[in-house]
Amino acid sequence: MNVQELLLGVQQNKINIEDAEAYLKSLPYQDMGFCKLDHHRELRSGFGETVYCSGKTVEHLVKIYESFALRQSNVLGTRATKAQYEAVKEVVPIVEYDEMGRTLWLQFENIEKTGEVAVLTGGTSDIPVAEEAARTAEYFGCRVNRIYDVGVAGIHRLLSKVDEVRRANCVIAIAGMEGALGGVVAGLVERPVIAVPTSIGYGANFHGLSALLTMLNSCAEGLSTVNIDNGFGAGYMAAQINRLGVEGGRK
Amino acid sequence: MNVQELLLGVQQNKINIEDAEAYLKSLPYQDMGFCKLDHHRELRSGFGETVYCSGKTVEHLVKIYESFALRQSNVLGTRATKAQYEAVKEVVPIVEYDEMGRTLWLQFENIEKTGEVAVLTGGTSDIPVAEEAARTAEYFGCRVNRIYDVGVAGIHRLLSKVDEVRRANCVIAIAGMEGALGGVVAGLVERPVIAVPTSIGYGANFHGLSALLTMLNSCAEGLSTVNIDNGFGAGYMAAQINRLGVEGGRK
Amino acid sequence: MNVQELLLGVQQNKINIEDAEAYLKSLPYQDMGFCKLDHHRELRSGFGETVYCSGKTVEHLVKIYESFALRQSNVLGTRATKAQYEAVKEVVPIVEYDEMGRTLWLQFENIEKTGEVAVLTGGTSDIPVAEEAARTAEYFGCRVNRIYDVGVAGIHRLLSKVDEVRRANCVIAIAGMEGALGGVVAGLVERPVIAVPTSIGYGANFHGLSALLTMLNSCAEGLSTVNIDNGFGAGYMAAQINRLGVEGGRK
Amino acid sequence: MNVQELLLGVQQNKINIEDAEAYLKSLPYQDMGFCKLDHHRELRSGFGETVYCSGKTVEHLVKIYESFALRQSNVLGTRATKAQYEAVKEVVPIVEYDEMGRTLWLQFENIEKTGEVAVLTGGTSDIPVAEEAARTAEYFGCRVNRIYDVGVAGIHRLLSKVDEVRRANCVIAIAGMEGALGGVVAGLVERPVIAVPTSIGYGANFHGLSALLTMLNSCAEGLSTVNIDNGFGAGYMAAQINRLGVEGGRK
Amino acid sequence: MNVQELLLGVQQNKINIEDAEAYLKSLPYQDMGFCKLDHHRELRSGFGETVYCSGKTVEHLVKIYESFALRQSNVLGTRATKAQYEAVKEVVPIVEYDEMGRTLWLQFENIEKTGEVAVLTGGTSDIPVAEEAARTAEYFGCRVNRIYDVGVAGIHRLLSKVDEVRRANCVIAIAGMEGALGGVVAGLVERPVIAVPTSIGYGANFHGLSALLTMLNSCAEGLSTVNIDNGFGAGYMAAQINRLGVEGGRK
Amino acid sequence: MNVQELLLGVQQNKINIEDAEAYLKSLPYQDMGFCKLDHHRELRSGFGETVYCSGKTVEHLVKIYESFALRQSNVLGTRATKAQYEAVKEVVPIVEYDEMGRTLWLQFENIEKTGEVAVLTGGTSDIPVAEEAARTAEYFGCRVNRIYDVGVAGIHRLLSKVDEVRRANCVIAIAGMEGALGGVVAGLVERPVIAVPTSIGYGANFHGLSALLTMLNSCAEGLSTVNIDNGFGAGYMAAQINRLGVEGGRK
Amino acid sequence: MNVQELLLGVQQNKINIEDAEAYLKSLPYQDMGFCKLDHHRELRSGFGETVYCSGKTVEHLVKIYESFALRQSNVLGTRATKAQYEAVKEVVPIVEYDEMGRTLWLQFENIEKTGEVAVLTGGTSDIPVAEEAARTAEYFGCRVNRIYDVGVAGIHRLLSKVDEVRRANCVIAIAGMEGALGGVVAGLVERPVIAVPTSIGYGANFHGLSALLTMLNSCAEGLSTVNIDNGFGAGYMAAQINRLGVEGGRK
Amino acid sequence: MNVQELLLGVQQNKINIEDAEAYLKSLPYQDMGFCKLDHHRELRSGFGETVYCSGKTVEHLVKIYESFALRQSNVLGTRATKAQYEAVKEVVPIVEYDEMGRTLWLQFENIEKTGEVAVLTGGTSDIPVAEEAARTAEYFGCRVNRIYDVGVAGIHRLLSKVDEVRRANCVIAIAGMEGALGGVVAGLVERPVIAVPTSIGYGANFHGLSALLTMLNSCAEGLSTVNIDNGFGAGYMAAQINRLGVEGGRK
Repeated sequence: MNVQELLLGVQQNKINIEDAEAYLKSLPYQDMGFCKLDHHRELRSGFGETVYCSGKTVEHLVKIYESFALRQSNVLGTRATKAQYEAVKEVVPIVEYDEMGRTLWLQFENIEKTGEVAVLTGGTSDIPVAEEAARTAEYFGCRVNRIYDVGVAGIHRLLSKVDEVRRANCVIAIAGMEGALGGVVAGLVERPVIAVPTSIGYGANFHGLSALLTMLNSCAEGLSTVNIDNGFGAGYMAAQINRLGVEGGRK
Repeated sequence: MNVQELLLGVQQNKINIEDAEAYLKSLPYQDMGFCKLDHHRELRSGFGETVYCSGKTVEHLVKIYESFALRQSNVLGTRATKAQYEAVKEVVPIVEYDEMGRTLWLQFENIEKTGEVAVLTGGTSDIPVAEEAARTAEYFGCRVNRIYDVGVAGIHRLLSKVDEVRRANCVIAIAGMEGALGGVVAGLVERPVIAVPTSIGYGANFHGLSALLTMLNSCAEGLSTVNIDNGFGAGYMAAQINRLGVEGGRK
Repeated sequence: MNVQELLLGVQQNKINIEDAEAYLKSLPYQDMGFCKLDHHRELRSGFGETVYCSGKTVEHLVKIYESFALRQSNVLGTRATKAQYEAVKEVVPIVEYDEMGRTLWLQFENIEKTGEVAVLTGGTSDIPVAEEAARTAEYFGCRVNRIYDVGVAGIHRLLSKVDEVRRANCVIAIAGMEGALGGVVAGLVERPVIAVPTSIGYGANFHGLSALLTMLNSCAEGLSTVNIDNGFGAGYMAAQINRLGVEGGRK
Repeated sequence: MNVQELLLGVQQNKINIEDAEAYLKSLPYQDMGFCKLDHHRELRSGFGETVYCSGKTVEHLVKIYESFALRQSNVLGTRATKAQYEAVKEVVPIVEYDEMGRTLWLQFENIEKTGEVAVLTGGTSDIPVAEEAARTAEYFGCRVNRIYDVGVAGIHRLLSKVDEVRRANCVIAIAGMEGALGGVVAGLVERPVIAVPTSIGYGANFHGLSALLTMLNSCAEGLSTVNIDNGFGAGYMAAQINRLGVEGGRK
Repeated sequence: MNVQELLLGVQQNKINIEDAEAYLKSLPYQDMGFCKLDHHRELRSGFGETVYCSGKTVEHLVKIYESFALRQSNVLGTRATKAQYEAVKEVVPIVEYDEMGRTLWLQFENIEKTGEVAVLTGGTSDIPVAEEAARTAEYFGCRVNRIYDVGVAGIHRLLSKVDEVRRANCVIAIAGMEGALGGVVAGLVERPVIAVPTSIGYGANFHGLSALLTMLNSCAEGLSTVNIDNGFGAGYMAAQINRLGVEGGRK
Repeated sequence: MNVQELLLGVQQNKINIEDAEAYLKSLPYQDMGFCKLDHHRELRSGFGETVYCSGKTVEHLVKIYESFALRQSNVLGTRATKAQYEAVKEVVPIVEYDEMGRTLWLQFENIEKTGEVAVLTGGTSDIPVAEEAARTAEYFGCRVNRIYDVGVAGIHRLLSKVDEVRRANCVIAIAGMEGALGGVVAGLVERPVIAVPTSIGYGANFHGLSALLTMLNSCAEGLSTVNIDNGFGAGYMAAQINRLGVEGGRK
Repeated sequence: MNVQELLLGVQQNKINIEDAEAYLKSLPYQDMGFCKLDHHRELRSGFGETVYCSGKTVEHLVKIYESFALRQSNVLGTRATKAQYEAVKEVVPIVEYDEMGRTLWLQFENIEKTGEVAVLTGGTSDIPVAEEAARTAEYFGCRVNRIYDVGVAGIHRLLSKVDEVRRANCVIAIAGMEGALGGVVAGLVERPVIAVPTSIGYGANFHGLSALLTMLNSCAEGLSTVNIDNGFGAGYMAAQINRLGVEGGRK
Repeated sequence: MNVQELLLGVQQNKINIEDAEAYLKSLPYQDMGFCKLDHHRELRSGFGETVYCSGKTVEHLVKIYESFALRQSNVLGTRATKAQYEAVKEVVPIVEYDEMGRTLWLQFENIEKTGEVAVLTGGTSDIPVAEEAARTAEYFGCRVNRIYDVGVAGIHRLLSKVDEVRRANCVIAIAGMEGALGGVVAGLVERPVIAVPTSIGYGANFHGLSALLTMLNSCAEGLSTVNIDNGFGAGYMAAQINRLGVEGGRK
């Protein structure tokens, strides 16, 4: 029931004013006391639920997953520790976990993978962030092509993969240290590139600041950047872009 | 002629080895001495040429625009000063200029505008960056909806425009000072949002750093960020995304 | 005895000069060797004592609480670890502790709660800071309304609570990551808003710098900011403001 | 007409649905094309309008003041240059300007000044920021006591003014360089202190960063901070606090 | 033997050229392989040896102290851990250790304490740094007056001690958080003040940066600053200044 | 009349209470409206007056110098522009100005120069800061030895001057760019060294930050640092130290 | 087989097009799934393989060393933990490890050491970085002269070693804290100096930032800088320069 | 005459002690009052003189060039303004100036250019820095190959020049914005690469910080970095390396 329907119901005396007010207030989220689950966003975006697990107590997290399991509702958790996984698994045995990318998910129906998102990394140390991005994109229905360890210090490795990269609707370029991968890739493809700086490195890397600034300052066109180590954010936006490529948008 | 054709020609003795080597070297750009015009990128991306005017001497810029005019080729210049515009205009009278967004362009054929990109600003001072973004998106064929001065300090202004914003294939959210617009918008729409921090503000704004960090740290999903004041970068990527929505991509 | 009375006493030879000098020196604090307890502040501000427990040795802390217990004097400690609590409890069994907000207090007489302070958080991870703020405000006599997990990425959650928030004499807005909550709230209410950035987040959050800069740069009116994670500071100032609302001030 | 009345009107068929929707959209601001004047805020806060003049074109500013003059409406502009003042004065001769504090205002009815706000500065170079703060507080109805050049490097100057400072409902402490004034004042009074760092200084001052950090890190209680040089923000919040002291708030 | 004597020896054929060269090379330090002990500095400065223990292996440290013990030579070590102390003590039982200030020393003859250095702290958490400073000054022959917990948030505590502070030849002012103590003290005394910022604090303190900037930007006269937590550096320089006051210098 | 005398006067009814209170308030400074001249400091420190001219209006500055001239009182102004000098000179013709060091002073009686302060610079571009330091030290009665352009990149230049440098009671080491001069000098002399970083340099110098950090981190002993370009601060503290060497202090 | 030979083969029908394409793709690296070993670089640079061990899992590292051992191929690993060493040693017993410099290597044939690289440190705490640099240079065939603990705070230690330092083809200057060693050395020798800032220090050292900025801002000629603690990078580049000195280059 | 000869002379009574002392003091530089010209460095390095013109007064600069002209001595000035050039030219008409690179030089004998240094830029805006580097290398006898506008956003431009770049003894890679050129080039060649970040860019470029960090963090081997915009430093070190390649060094 949308707002127009609501107003119509009020006009036709099918809905009284108090109910209309209450509905408007309670619609968009479920208040669990310690947090407010945002069901509204799912309706709005057509995308399943996600949970940022870092910093949540095990008790809270178990309750959240239990609640999704009872609703037979998909959910993707990110930044989940192994301890969190094990605690949830005891109560919700069907929960799945990927240790590399620290993702923790329930998937009740299989989603067909469509389109294509390419996930590139500069080095092998960037793979955890890449797996978070890749899993997120897959959770939201993307076909994902992982192309790892193609950093610019040995540019021929990347060049030999260009055709594959160009095939994707959206490219995620993940790199730490100098972070130059994003700009070089954006210069080689015609699809949008989402750059993810990682905190891999030491010294004047300043925990990813170096790669972040490199990506923000790239003179290549068709590139934007998310927070350091934010594989989830890149995977989410890539899924939005991929969906436009698969389903089309406003003409 | 692509590389496979080239190799075929070599095999069939239609192309000798020296020519093949020379072709591989000279293909992708025209060397003008002081710069290398990248025609390769245009073929690759299907997007017209662009020129970053800032810091270029008037002499160089006039030569570049003259060369495009002779080829009857479209070109979009960004960060052009009025003095640069006037110098180019003397030699290429059909050049057009927008003082607000500092864009300088030649458009020989009319491009049909399709899809939709929404360009939002937090305040009126952000409009120059917004006009750079909007013009860029239009240059690359997007229908653009400008929605200015809808910053979060008076959230009702933004809320009253939500339906319009949701209609777009891609949203550009431009804001200085605290830069919270990007995250709030991304929480309200299902399409990708490109956030542009601006250098508007003073004090602990640190020339846009404040807005940049806000946007990078947003916990809203579906948001990525470009450099401070980089309206062009946002407009370009929005056009890539919009094209996916209009033409579709890999299914 | 104030300074005027002291001078009168000297004039009337009721107080000799050495005593007057000594009094002026010893009045305002009690020197415990390792620290100087500031009783003067309590007289001055009408507010009970507070102790910043972080970094204090267990021995020192026990002595301090013992001394307050002997005087039947209220005291509020902040940033107290569980180990500190347990050590104090052995000697002063009536001491109370809140693990979430890390506050440790003695309250000998019940203080009536008056006025109202609203304490808002952007997410669930901000709750420890919020509990420090809320407990501090309560300790100083405020009625507190906790409204948690209403961050701007899902703006409808906040909007549904606006009436409640507007009722307060003072609002504390606590948020990490992008920290936009402060500015959005200040744009919605007519009472002063104290913004508390938290260190929740990662990457370009830089341990709370991002939220701090957002709050300092907000273009909303009626907003000021305290140090990162400084729930106590916000609670204290909110109590000062609330007291003005309850008791009135200079007309 | 509030939302409940609106819904009642819809129920009673006095208001049709399209009108109700339009009303909800157009209510809160007047769209002038280049900006959206927020009348809603005035109703909400009971405070007159304000305009941030910096960066606005002379043409836009003249139109804005003209519009207020026609409505016989008060308005306070901040960060106005002398050139802006002169341009506005030609069209709206009754406009007033303070060059020191760069404020530009229309005041049609005289507001009675009540309560008291003390405005302190560390040095003489901080006076422009202080005048912006003082004028803002006066515009919103505060009696203001200016106490300038009482920085902590000569602490006796401040100590001799303590009684005056304690009389105020709210204190604004403005200082550049080391910025220690805020913490020292907060240690001496029982009312809330709003600290304003200024950009006065050189070298490791880093344009006010030094004073800002000092104020944020003060261990004095009852202190919060606004952006560097933000006299307006301090004046506004001080007026909110002063109003609570004069009118009382929620008991 | 100084260089003039050496040249004289060479001229008189009492010293051959190879020896002269060797002497010039080997004079100023003893090469222990893993480090070069700088005996030259002791001769030059008239001050005993010091060792920075942090990061040194236990084996190296034991050898160093053993070597000093064999020479019956005083030595002061700073930043020594308790484990280092215990290891040294097994081999050199007369070594002394102060856990609070982390100093580890051998003192074979008693040095008469002369002059006076006042060591002030803002809070109790600054005491470890203060003890490092005080012990260093004492090791180099200063009478030291410790005045702790006199931070500016309760300015009366400091004011009541002003006479004592003024008596010293040199004042060391140690403070974390806002770090305002240095400037306030320098405004109250006529002797040089050495300010030591400490890393005490949290949030926008940035590990002592806040206090460091405050001290560097103080507008008080007669103040200079050493590195964050560098009690040793302050104690050393205070001893140099105190020696000038006791022994006099160039007239 | 000191406080003890005052209290005696009150006891003996020679001074009434109101007068005593007024005296205590008015003693330490002269309020000129726009600023408070701190005569108290002069009495306290035995040092003449100083004025920081930067940012002061010409009108105010002329008034201040006129007031000193009428009192036949010495004064030293720093950071004075040539325009300020010329304006003051019209009213006070005996004022003197040094363009290099931007100092502006009145000296009614000649002060005998005693002791010695050595002022060293790394390069020629550091000379303006050096002249501010040197003039300040001279104004306060120091004999000054200028040793310029002895930076560490050509270490032999410094080494050839070591004997001269060692003769001074206090050394001021001024350097920009890498700022290594301070530490090298402190390693060569036994007197206190005050390091002044300058803003000379470019790029990763960050306006003097590089030299500032170098000086703060020096592992040489007997070194402290003042703000970037703060020649005055160094000269003042050097004069305090030099005075101890000349007059002696507490034994 | 180079590209010209390949094209010749295609022309002569000795190589078919598919093979040519495949060759071009597969040539430069071996894809091990989790990483791509870059054999191309070895051919290109004439230098043996290197592996950055930090962050690699033990399983991956063992596989990599096993693969090199099977090929009887030299390899140098850097930033290897002792645990990594022990795991590799179980499978590849001939592997060698240096705990100080954290290097882990296989060397099947002995390389003659030629030329000379001097490796200097400011203090003893810089030795781990120095050993990484020295071992790297040796691995690539350099004779290495280690000159440790010659920091500028005791400049005579360095001066007595100048002749030795001047003999080298390339100098590596390693220092933490103030980092002045690089500039002083470059001022004393005529060969290129590579400066390595280390993270040794505390407080305003900011984990090596201080030394890094010092080195970048040195006004000495013939100096360039690598990342903080990057001994490997300095050793590698020194080996390239040393090779030019030994073998000669383009005349 | 070297030090051994000097000592020999003293031994043989050919040189008396006073003269020997004086010689040792006066040898290495000429004191011009305002600066000390370092002739010693020239002898030491075999390289001609250089002068950093920025910030020098016209009077001083004219005197310096006049002095070199009288000695018929070559000199290279950097960062010279056109005004400085014109002033010098009036007195020394044979002086030459390059406006692009801001170099100002006297060259009395022609130096044969040998070896090869490749100077690459990412964009056209980097050319001024490149010309400073190229001219410096040429002044010190290098053959220079300029390869401009080959930034990584269009990687094919660089790839087509790889053979040329590999030919050089040393490569200088100059880039602003993201600064990725250095790492990509170092991955393609076997000779040392000196990276020069430039201040070209805007926003999160922070005046070259972005490019600087990128270069310092490159994971490519054989790369070191100089200060932002420091073309001179790169040219000087490249000349040192090139000389090793041409003349050979220690075997």
